[in-house]
Amino acid sequence: MSTGFFGDIQKIKYEGPDSTNPLAFRYYQPDEIVMGKRMEDHLRFAVAYWHSFTWPGGDPFGGQTFLRPWFTDGMQAAKLKADVAFEFFSLLGAPYYCFHDADVRPEGANFAENTKNLNEIVDYFAEKQAATGVKLLWGTANLFSHRRYMAGAATNPDPDVFAFAAATVKTCLDATQRLGGENYVLWGGREGYETLLNTDIGRELDHMGRFLNLVVEYKHKIGFKGTILIEPKPQEPTKHQYDYDVATVYGFLRKHGLENEVKLNIEQGHAILAGHTFEHELALANALGIFGSIDMNRNDYQSGWDTDQFPNNVPEMALAYYQVLQAGGFTTGGTNFDAKLRRQSLDPDDLLIGHIGGMDCCARGLKAAARMVEDGALSKPLDARYAGWNSPEAQKMLRGEYSLEQIAANVEGGDINPEPKSGRQELLENVVNRYV
Amino acid sequence: MSTGFFGDIQKIKYEGPDSTNPLAFRYYQPDEIVMGKRMEDHLRFAVAYWHSFTWPGGDPFGGQTFLRPWFTDGMQAAKLKADVAFEFFSLLGAPYYCFHDADVRPEGANFAENTKNLNEIVDYFAEKQAATGVKLLWGTANLFSHRRYMAGAATNPDPDVFAFAAATVKTCLDATQRLGGENYVLWGGREGYETLLNTDIGRELDHMGRFLNLVVEYKHKIGFKGTILIEPKPQEPTKHQYDYDVATVYGFLRKHGLENEVKLNIEQGHAILAGHTFEHELALANALGIFGSIDMNRNDYQSGWDTDQFPNNVPEMALAYYQVLQAGGFTTGGTNFDAKLRRQSLDPDDLLIGHIGGMDCCARGLKAAARMVEDGALSKPLDARYAGWNSPEAQKMLRGEYSLEQIAANVEGGDINPEPKSGRQELLENVVNRYV
Amino acid sequence: MSTGFFGDIQKIKYEGPDSTNPLAFRYYQPDEIVMGKRMEDHLRFAVAYWHSFTWPGGDPFGGQTFLRPWFTDGMQAAKLKADVAFEFFSLLGAPYYCFHDADVRPEGANFAENTKNLNEIVDYFAEKQAATGVKLLWGTANLFSHRRYMAGAATNPDPDVFAFAAATVKTCLDATQRLGGENYVLWGGREGYETLLNTDIGRELDHMGRFLNLVVEYKHKIGFKGTILIEPKPQEPTKHQYDYDVATVYGFLRKHGLENEVKLNIEQGHAILAGHTFEHELALANALGIFGSIDMNRNDYQSGWDTDQFPNNVPEMALAYYQVLQAGGFTTGGTNFDAKLRRQSLDPDDLLIGHIGGMDCCARGLKAAARMVEDGALSKPLDARYAGWNSPEAQKMLRGEYSLEQIAANVEGGDINPEPKSGRQELLENVVNRYV
Amino acid sequence: MSTGFFGDIQKIKYEGPDSTNPLAFRYYQPDEIVMGKRMEDHLRFAVAYWHSFTWPGGDPFGGQTFLRPWFTDGMQAAKLKADVAFEFFSLLGAPYYCFHDADVRPEGANFAENTKNLNEIVDYFAEKQAATGVKLLWGTANLFSHRRYMAGAATNPDPDVFAFAAATVKTCLDATQRLGGENYVLWGGREGYETLLNTDIGRELDHMGRFLNLVVEYKHKIGFKGTILIEPKPQEPTKHQYDYDVATVYGFLRKHGLENEVKLNIEQGHAILAGHTFEHELALANALGIFGSIDMNRNDYQSGWDTDQFPNNVPEMALAYYQVLQAGGFTTGGTNFDAKLRRQSLDPDDLLIGHIGGMDCCARGLKAAARMVEDGALSKPLDARYAGWNSPEAQKMLRGEYSLEQIAANVEGGDINPEPKSGRQELLENVVNRYV
Repeated sequence: MSTGFFGDIQKIKYEGPDSTNPLAFRYYQPDEIVMGKRMEDHLRFAVAYWHSFTWPGGDPFGGQTFLRPWFTDGMQAAKLKADVAFEFFSLLGAPYYCFHDADVRPEGANFAENTKNLNEIVDYFAEKQAATGVKLLWGTANLFSHRRYMAGAATNPDPDVFAFAAATVKTCLDATQRLGGENYVLWGGREGYETLLNTDIGRELDHMGRFLNLVVEYKHKIGFKGTILIEPKPQEPTKHQYDYDVATVYGFLRKHGLENEVKLNIEQGHAILAGHTFEHELALANALGIFGSIDMNRNDYQSGWDTDQFPNNVPEMALAYYQVLQAGGFTTGGTNFDAKLRRQSLDPDDLLIGHIGGMDCCARGLKAAARMVEDGALSKPLDARYAGWNSPEAQKMLRGEYSLEQIAANVEGGDINPEPKSGRQELLENVVNRYV
Repeated sequence: MSTGFFGDIQKIKYEGPDSTNPLAFRYYQPDEIVMGKRMEDHLRFAVAYWHSFTWPGGDPFGGQTFLRPWFTDGMQAAKLKADVAFEFFSLLGAPYYCFHDADVRPEGANFAENTKNLNEIVDYFAEKQAATGVKLLWGTANLFSHRRYMAGAATNPDPDVFAFAAATVKTCLDATQRLGGENYVLWGGREGYETLLNTDIGRELDHMGRFLNLVVEYKHKIGFKGTILIEPKPQEPTKHQYDYDVATVYGFLRKHGLENEVKLNIEQGHAILAGHTFEHELALANALGIFGSIDMNRNDYQSGWDTDQFPNNVPEMALAYYQVLQAGGFTTGGTNFDAKLRRQSLDPDDLLIGHIGGMDCCARGLKAAARMVEDGALSKPLDARYAGWNSPEAQKMLRGEYSLEQIAANVEGGDINPEPKSGRQELLENVVNRYV
Repeated sequence: MSTGFFGDIQKIKYEGPDSTNPLAFRYYQPDEIVMGKRMEDHLRFAVAYWHSFTWPGGDPFGGQTFLRPWFTDGMQAAKLKADVAFEFFSLLGAPYYCFHDADVRPEGANFAENTKNLNEIVDYFAEKQAATGVKLLWGTANLFSHRRYMAGAATNPDPDVFAFAAATVKTCLDATQRLGGENYVLWGGREGYETLLNTDIGRELDHMGRFLNLVVEYKHKIGFKGTILIEPKPQEPTKHQYDYDVATVYGFLRKHGLENEVKLNIEQGHAILAGHTFEHELALANALGIFGSIDMNRNDYQSGWDTDQFPNNVPEMALAYYQVLQAGGFTTGGTNFDAKLRRQSLDPDDLLIGHIGGMDCCARGLKAAARMVEDGALSKPLDARYAGWNSPEAQKMLRGEYSLEQIAANVEGGDINPEPKSGRQELLENVVNRYV
Repeated sequence: MSTGFFGDIQKIKYEGPDSTNPLAFRYYQPDEIVMGKRMEDHLRFAVAYWHSFTWPGGDPFGGQTFLRPWFTDGMQAAKLKADVAFEFFSLLGAPYYCFHDADVRPEGANFAENTKNLNEIVDYFAEKQAATGVKLLWGTANLFSHRRYMAGAATNPDPDVFAFAAATVKTCLDATQRLGGENYVLWGGREGYETLLNTDIGRELDHMGRFLNLVVEYKHKIGFKGTILIEPKPQEPTKHQYDYDVATVYGFLRKHGLENEVKLNIEQGHAILAGHTFEHELALANALGIFGSIDMNRNDYQSGWDTDQFPNNVPEMALAYYQVLQAGGFTTGGTNFDAKLRRQSLDPDDLLIGHIGGMDCCARGLKAAARMVEDGALSKPLDARYAGWNSPEAQKMLRGEYSLEQIAANVEGGDINPEPKSGRQELLENVVNRYV
């Protein structure tokens, strides 16, 4: 039974590249086989509950622009929101969704009320999942919006806030498990600082390490089979966030013995804010063995804050999915659209149109990436470039069979005087442009 | 015997805050006691050979502006340069200097020539050190200027370049030891990439790990007592440099088992380019136990490249030295001025004036920081802010004596519902302004 | 009669540099004479109503942190807010304040209600001004927060929004005149675009020009003696704002014949976001003859959004006030603190402490700048540097008495081959450090 | 007669989208008709002499990487360089080239020698142009590389430098006219400052205005029919450059009465460094009536300096050419590749490959843009969005027939209370993705 929010819009269909119907896919075909796998199973799209159903359209200089019938308090509104959300997932054909506790339940006066409210909604979601076949990619706890978290959650100077946050993660992990969630995400939006003048970095990092270990221990205790994911971001809302980028989180995981327990949920916009390309963060996570999932969006290159726009640049997205394929594709992870409509995009169909555009671009990117993989378009030149390292002498250096002195003697003795070779960057860029 | 380059300028003296003599110190008094230690022993100033004596004043859009009598090729010019440099160290009263091999020796046609040239200069330096009492803070190898390194040194796709670089580090570490250097620095200016399209990050990081282990093994073999330091920088000349920032290097050291062997040389300008404050990088290095030394300069906040200017903002510098004092002060490290004159500052006395200004600002910063430490101006409020963590219950959470479930039960049972407390940032900023 | 909001805090007094009382001035003495004028008359401090009394402490990832008794709807709450605000101005000793209509009145359902509400508050303010002696530095209209302005005010594609905005400015200018305001400010927070795809820049700029002319015409009609000010900002909330920076606004004023009618209100934080230093924007406005007033705050150098922090870096502020003094000081303009507490600074006294710190830093900056002016510390070397232009030949070039050909003939004939002279940047930086 | 530099490479041909030949065009067909005009006549490609034939591959941390037989001093080397360059233009099929004087002639000891050298090369170029049919898009003077310009050319504190620069522009304008150049460009790379401490902005801007007027006067005197173009850039090499961006240059032209005499040469990379998109700068120049020509390249989004890479992102380029078409296409202007090979791209064929990739992407961008224009894909929704402004009442507001008071009366009287409409950004982004 429809809520009527989307009028008479029917389930979005694939109509092919020539379609000019704004409510149709031109590239995304769930059943199309790419590298031996259904496109849907490659991309594993998820809709973000918060941006699409909870965010009112405000920004730092203006208030609500969206008028939604569920923007009132209480459980009834929360259920209406859920009705619209699951209707949306079905219209769009998105196999997954993601949520924070605070997106889905009314805010309670204390922990007990929050838990009760969350559990009631979880029951409701469970029914809806069963009815629609939509699944939960990941759940997470919002440990940043309420004023109690203004100075951090795990890294709050007040241990009661640490405890409140820990208790909240427990309930959210329980909820995620109950709903069959395939991952659980931690985004430490307030785990950082506004000023070093009132912050003990060492202490806070230790607390954050303990917190994460608590979560991992509990996951094993309850037999949660999903992946624990950390989502890096360099700053905003805080001046500095501890989970700055992939490299920073890796060091943190190593320090706390968690590099085999926790993987990363990497967002395009956060990569940009940290001074990296998205594909850099993905490639680095692959190299370090901690790639997990992605938040697909785009950050405006000229804006210094998190713009969370729907992605639309296919050449860039192809390079991102190329890295995903290099990782062997997603296992428990997927493509969550951590993207929100522009606040001027008021109409219900804008919500569909934003996602359709994003999904089509992802499909184009994936297909281009897959063809590059199949052709060895980048991997063959790469292998050739490093081929010298396959020589026995080079391998001896790498295996530690030569000391610095021996290498120096070899260089001097053999008058090794290497001549540089072209890096061929423009050629490779042209090659990529054959695929996108 | 003077070279005459500095005309009749005499050794720079302390004349006190009211002096208007541009060739006098107003704050830097080597023998003044700060927190029980001579100011000179706190600050341990070093002059950077490259910026002050080798750099011709060029930038990407213009060539040489400085006319120096030693800007010709050959060993004689190199020795004239050394004469002027040591004269400068003495006039300035700088206790230390730092150098790359390529700054000090003529470029040879191959490794053997480079080594021979370096050794001849090292002999010359040894005499000059003995004559002047000036010491070597650190030596390093230039593994980025020659075209053979255009695609990296340790991370070059050609193993011969790895070997050439390794051999070069050996000679530079030998030279550093011979000259009594207190540290050896590695700055991987080309260890990174221009494009991911031709780069295997995982492979290159492994090679870099092996390279660093080679250096550490050799250090122990020859009994070098100094500290091995890595200097982080996020980019420039490469699009991405592997030693991005303190957090990134920490993760790298952990991965390669070197976190107890290697420390960091942290530069203000590099911190800025990585999106951090200088004091952040210092505080983080302290928290991670890898603080070593500093490259003191300033980066223009509006320029997106490494401007390497002399520092001049005392309030910012006070916060940096506050972190140095939190680390217990320098041990083998020091304050290297990795700063160069603006290319329009043509005159010999500009070289002195730039350093004098920088040293005076460091002295002001150190003294302000020391007074803050002595008064507990920041540490007392900090301890108060985290005091809740001293409670037995809080300590139990940290020691892992409570599981997530137990914490949740405690929160629910005790209806823990923490009320936030003022973070007092403006108050603390005003406190700092009482000291600077 | 006190509202009791500030407890038993008494009027803030000057206690001198050695005071450690956080609720005292250490540098700001209203009656101290600087360059022949009272410090209060130089600095002309104003408190921003919006940040200090209306902003709830939210950010894009979190809601209200401040709990204020007036944070409810309706006229009574608006008057309580006014009571506290004027009490605050008096405690602080701030001679001025500034406001937007939306800060001070309850939001009405339409234009007529807004006008009625505003007028009622203006009556109330008029009484309070008379009672306290506090004056209005400037008024302004909030044409960006309400959803009707989501796509711009003067530049909205809907002419009804243009009309609504114009009508609103009329009432705000009337209110400003009635309260004796010394300036009227326009900040076009939504005058810009989110995407060029739906924007006709040429058309929108023309509309904006017409809008500004309407305001200027009305100002003259009603005999408003104050200055009309535009406040540049490059972006945020929009991706691009038309009043990008000083240079951009100058071109806009020229195009619309308003360069003698309108001046600029320049904000430190907006300068930083536009890629400039604050002193650059001030110096350029001076050079173009459009300097008016300042919004004094600071933007975090590592954050890509408008952080609106209280200023605290005295050396930078001294350079800003140096430019203000170069302009001959303020006429109708002043120093508005467009600064807000950090959202963790919850306590009533934080509001005083933030302003006290800012005012003290301004006083230090002003005094340093005044001494530099009096000593000719920067102006003498500047005059010397350009002295060559005083020669008759140089003047002829500038007056257009030589054509390009003649100049070429002079160069060839006289073999003019100029030798560069040192720019002396480090020397001048050291000079500044003698004053700050 | 071939120089042999490019081996046996033959003239680059169009082979169609399926070609995998790196030395063929896949999209650029000079004779293909797009919107009624040959593609070559739309795009008007030019090769930049400096990047491709003069730049040695250095960067701030490394020296020459390219080994070119003409990298020696003297006239013979300059002519060999010219031989290779014109051979390159012909192989590539580029109809135009661009140059600075310093790119093409040996550096002389003074102005007379420079002039003599330039004139000799101009003779040589004239022959080559006649022989190959290649034409000059624009000439310019290098007023930034020589140390005499270290503190500016037109804005130098020394009037002799102003004179030297003026004389140099005269000879370059003469050379441009003689070679039938269609434009003359001024890029003021050193017209700006390193520090405000030694700079009189007002004075320097006035000098720059006089300088530009000298050039315009001379243009008319000699009957040069081409366009005088200014190329904005915000910074680098200077901290601040006066020709910051399009809006800044517009204000400057207005101030000096030159807005009808001078147009703009807009570069993608410079737009990015100024915080704008390329299409913003183009759209703004169109709106202000000062669009002239483009420097097509791309700036790395994560690097804070001018990276001058070959363009490769077709969706972005389509939006740029969409603006060019909105301007009615190029008249005297064209598409100059102000792009250089990466310094690791050592091989002669890299030079061709870089340009081929750029030209193909331009062709794809142009064709996509043309289809959008032909379909009214963006213009129809745009017209609809602003349609309200066509009403008589709206037009009266714009024509100044209503005063602010009357508008306010209308709003109050008519209870005008506009309801916002969706901005449809995501829909339009999807529309663009149908074309690229």
